[in-house]
Amino acid sequence: MDGILEKIKSPADVKKLSPVELEQLAHEIRERLINVVARTGGHIGPNLGVVELTIALHYVFDTPVDSFVFDVSHQAYVHKLLTGRERSFHTIRQPEGLNGFMLRTESEHDSYGAGHAGTALSAALGMAVARDLAGGSEHIVALAGDAAFTNGISFEALNNIAVQTRRMIVVLNDNDWSIDKNVGAIAEYFHKITANNTFSNLHDKAAGLIEKFGGKAARHVVRKAEEAAKGLIGPGMLFEEFGLSYYGPIDGHNLPLLIETFKFLKQQNKPVVLHAITQKGRGFQPALEKQKKFHGLGPYDPESGETKSAGQKTYSEIFAESLTKLARANEKVVAITAAMPNGTALDLYRPHHPSRYFDVGIAEEHAVIFAAGMATKGYKPFCAIYSTFLQRAFDPIVHDVCLQNLPVVFCMDRGGLSGDDGPTHHGLFDISYLRSVPNIIHMVPKDEDELQDMMYTAMLHEGPSAIRYPRGTGPGVEVKAQPVALEIGKAEVLNDPGRTDVAILGLGAMLPEAVRLKEMLQHDGFSAAVINPRFAKPIDRDCLADFGSRAGLVITLEDHVLAGGFGSAVMEVLNELDLNVPVVRIGWPDAFIEHGKPEALRAKYGITAEAAHEKAKPYLSRLMDRVLARHS
Amino acid sequence: MDGILEKIKSPADVKKLSPVELEQLAHEIRERLINVVARTGGHIGPNLGVVELTIALHYVFDTPVDSFVFDVSHQAYVHKLLTGRERSFHTIRQPEGLNGFMLRTESEHDSYGAGHAGTALSAALGMAVARDLAGGSEHIVALAGDAAFTNGISFEALNNIAVQTRRMIVVLNDNDWSIDKNVGAIAEYFHKITANNTFSNLHDKAAGLIEKFGGKAARHVVRKAEEAAKGLIGPGMLFEEFGLSYYGPIDGHNLPLLIETFKFLKQQNKPVVLHAITQKGRGFQPALEKQKKFHGLGPYDPESGETKSAGQKTYSEIFAESLTKLARANEKVVAITAAMPNGTALDLYRPHHPSRYFDVGIAEEHAVIFAAGMATKGYKPFCAIYSTFLQRAFDPIVHDVCLQNLPVVFCMDRGGLSGDDGPTHHGLFDISYLRSVPNIIHMVPKDEDELQDMMYTAMLHEGPSAIRYPRGTGPGVEVKAQPVALEIGKAEVLNDPGRTDVAILGLGAMLPEAVRLKEMLQHDGFSAAVINPRFAKPIDRDCLADFGSRAGLVITLEDHVLAGGFGSAVMEVLNELDLNVPVVRIGWPDAFIEHGKPEALRAKYGITAEAAHEKAKPYLSRLMDRVLARHS
Repeated sequence: MDGILEKIKSPADVKKLSPVELEQLAHEIRERLINVVARTGGHIGPNLGVVELTIALHYVFDTPVDSFVFDVSHQAYVHKLLTGRERSFHTIRQPEGLNGFMLRTESEHDSYGAGHAGTALSAALGMAVARDLAGGSEHIVALAGDAAFTNGISFEALNNIAVQTRRMIVVLNDNDWSIDKNVGAIAEYFHKITANNTFSNLHDKAAGLIEKFGGKAARHVVRKAEEAAKGLIGPGMLFEEFGLSYYGPIDGHNLPLLIETFKFLKQQNKPVVLHAITQKGRGFQPALEKQKKFHGLGPYDPESGETKSAGQKTYSEIFAESLTKLARANEKVVAITAAMPNGTALDLYRPHHPSRYFDVGIAEEHAVIFAAGMATKGYKPFCAIYSTFLQRAFDPIVHDVCLQNLPVVFCMDRGGLSGDDGPTHHGLFDISYLRSVPNIIHMVPKDEDELQDMMYTAMLHEGPSAIRYPRGTGPGVEVKAQPVALEIGKAEVLNDPGRTDVAILGLGAMLPEAVRLKEMLQHDGFSAAVINPRFAKPIDRDCLADFGSRAGLVITLEDHVLAGGFGSAVMEVLNELDLNVPVVRIGWPDAFIEHGKPEALRAKYGITAEAAHEKAKPYLSRLMDRVLARHS
Repeated sequence: MDGILEKIKSPADVKKLSPVELEQLAHEIRERLINVVARTGGHIGPNLGVVELTIALHYVFDTPVDSFVFDVSHQAYVHKLLTGRERSFHTIRQPEGLNGFMLRTESEHDSYGAGHAGTALSAALGMAVARDLAGGSEHIVALAGDAAFTNGISFEALNNIAVQTRRMIVVLNDNDWSIDKNVGAIAEYFHKITANNTFSNLHDKAAGLIEKFGGKAARHVVRKAEEAAKGLIGPGMLFEEFGLSYYGPIDGHNLPLLIETFKFLKQQNKPVVLHAITQKGRGFQPALEKQKKFHGLGPYDPESGETKSAGQKTYSEIFAESLTKLARANEKVVAITAAMPNGTALDLYRPHHPSRYFDVGIAEEHAVIFAAGMATKGYKPFCAIYSTFLQRAFDPIVHDVCLQNLPVVFCMDRGGLSGDDGPTHHGLFDISYLRSVPNIIHMVPKDEDELQDMMYTAMLHEGPSAIRYPRGTGPGVEVKAQPVALEIGKAEVLNDPGRTDVAILGLGAMLPEAVRLKEMLQHDGFSAAVINPRFAKPIDRDCLADFGSRAGLVITLEDHVLAGGFGSAVMEVLNELDLNVPVVRIGWPDAFIEHGKPEALRAKYGITAEAAHEKAKPYLSRLMDRVLARHS
């Protein structure tokens, strides 16, 4: 009975297995997950939690005719293993390998991609309504974690499901966690449900009965659950009030029960929600013990779960330490996270200022408006939200914060290419979407110490501000004990050769490339200035007026898309100054960038000093006269 | 007892009034609202519905120490009348006059501004938490319509309220309408509550008892309501499940009852929600009969409610008619609105294709993801959402639609300056926030017929697209019976003089200004080309390569902010083409624009042919040599 997983070429093979083989499959999948992700890194905890759920779904339903829509979809590894990707599974999150999320271009079984939370119910409803219109009979199953219900979009969808379709299945995968422990009333509500007798009764009954009688017993349990749900004070009142029929809670690791339940739900002519209780990290002791750590992480030891200590502090850690310092000195400083205390490192800040720490759930819009409300009362909220997730709050940034000119600070972690997580997680748009908004300032630090100075500057600034910093570590410079305030909109000239052939502006993490480029140009005989712009908005006009008049070429480098980005902002100012100096812009092209190692992707897409050098060549040759004149 | 309203200089004056005088005040306010808005236009219906609620709030609470946060805040006229703005109320929505929404810069009583729905609970919670942290004792009252609960942000806030503060008052102003009749499960849920006996019983009792016994009776009624709410199957289970104590429903027009209820709620040490039933348009027969029309409108006859017929069709109407036509020919076309069937004119489409019409509530994010889901099943969703409201869905546009390259069409009504509604409603950012996103195309029609052609082009296009068109009417050209498809990314050259001194690109509604500018330049002796760009993305590179080489100056005109806008996109392409031609860009500055008449605001901020002419002068003088050479 060894090696069942290797024989699963498609979901059809899952359907051929006996109950005992299915359990064996679950076991093999867990082993594979633990061993592969130990090397690749990835979302191990969530996937270990949905092994039985995913097997049961593929046993009962038929993708790609039926559709599974996974919320966030970081829990799709098991699905990938069962849908023809077992052979390539070892490449997950590796360059050129499988993506760590659902991806429509990767497989016809991936009906809908994601990476941000809260979209599954809306997308699934769109599919269900489309099916109804077309007169189809296929099934649409949305699988969403309990954390998805801290996000407003899930409720916008709930408000529409029952009035728009008669057939759609929502699986609430309740493991009590998002990335961190869930917060808020919804989490308490789910707690209340699972803490009451219904669940433990059903659970015990299911275990006992199914052992004895198999499928029939499961049907009995489901019927009991149905009856409970019909009661006016059933555990699922919240869903019932939205017009969905609630079933559960059931044990999300009991394969026979799950299979019978899905068979039953498949036949319902009404939208239903199945509440399944799962255990994040199931089957891997280190993951059970440290759920937060094993949500998603880099490589680890498959036996002990040990990870290599990072050594150098990340930007996130520097951010958290600096905020702790600022909050100590200023009692109006508060920290807000949208369910990412770990990713943003705010869990390092929290113990120091617990009353000025707010985790609002996966609710970026609420986070920003909540911050705006606090700011009207004299507080100085620091919202730590990844660049890509802050896209969720674009309208609150415009409508609540900037229009009212409130001093909210956006600390945008993962600004720039994110790497292994791929296009849903790259933070490549924030300069474009923020710099068109009046009143906000946008800063990008060159190193850890400058991050702290920018946070201090933002704290003192009487309007909205944003700071973007990259994933991972920076150059590793020491952070001053006391921050200093930067002049708003003032660039830092690192190297001014006087007579300047080329002025190079290297924004944030691109500054080292700017320095390398300067050396290449010097080697070619050109004099080059290196500028740390610090501000993507406002752009330093004096600095550009100066170098724009002196230099024969301006080169901008940014870890951001070119369209509407920093280089574009520089061109706007040169245009307003009526300076005719040519500009070479280096940044990401107008395309979604795949996952991969940042270094390799930068080389591939030309976000390097070498690429800038190459792109500048035609302009440099025009500058040769000037260089030769100087030497003659 | 005449003229009570005139004597209200501040909320303190409200508190001095007797019950009879309060009723008289309500009467005078209604008269004033009906007569003033008859001239100014505005949100008459919603304000007539909250007369008693607002009086009672100001009778019981003390702004600006206490804070009222009004959702959307178009229902703040009564509040403005009672907070020192009675004398200036006739200027509401007039140039230089009062804003039609709450505005922090207008009055210390306007603690929080809005214009987009669903923000009140989040902002109020921010204030409540700030108060708690600072050890304050002031009250925070959020007033939100039932429609706000079709928006996800309200639920994100609900999820946080009970766990974060012990004191905050939410008033659910339930009038069964947003702008249109409310949709979805939440609307049905509120219906269910108000249809049951509790409300009518309480209502009748309140009326009778208060007449006899005044305040004491009201307290009795409130106690009864409280007892009902305590019951496990109370009408407010939804709120109770989120940890808020629910009171109501009560008659939102019964002043003594409201006053006693607010006095009671003020003393509660827990977050509470009061469910008040109000009548939109109360006291004005035409508004009661046509609630949709009288939500917000232009001037009308204060007796009959008659409005002048518009005559020429608006862009919205052309959009709806064209979509009706496209849907007739293509069964995959579907229409989606976020609670704006009237504003987007989709109510003209709906009767023709009722099964392919979806009003999802004030839920722009869900609308877009729902559309993406439908698109995966071969449908061609047209999302009609105002430019400013589509900001809400920026992340779904990136993450769900563009990343997956799904053929969803965004029809952005009110693209450009909106006028009387002011900064919350201007649609001045959509080019900036969309053009950085890969895969999407962005179109701007010069007239009604081109709008239809662009919709047809979008329907045929196999990826995402956006079309922005202005509020109100266009040039009034006839719309062809059959649309034609436009070449993607191809501009239309309207006037090519061959040897071209100046190339003028007039985007969409700015094209007439471009033509006027051409005439001015011709008068000065310059030859000028006029180009209708059609596409803000992709920019027509061939066209720019051609005119960028020929012309000595390029001028762009756009009804959009300059930062990251169309002119900036043109400069990016000229830069990539290594064309050194100077560019003069005309568009809105980096500031939020106040409300006012579009013509006047365009003149003030220089969004005109005259301003372009002036700004171009230094460049034109440099071109004189070239002109003189031609004539010598």
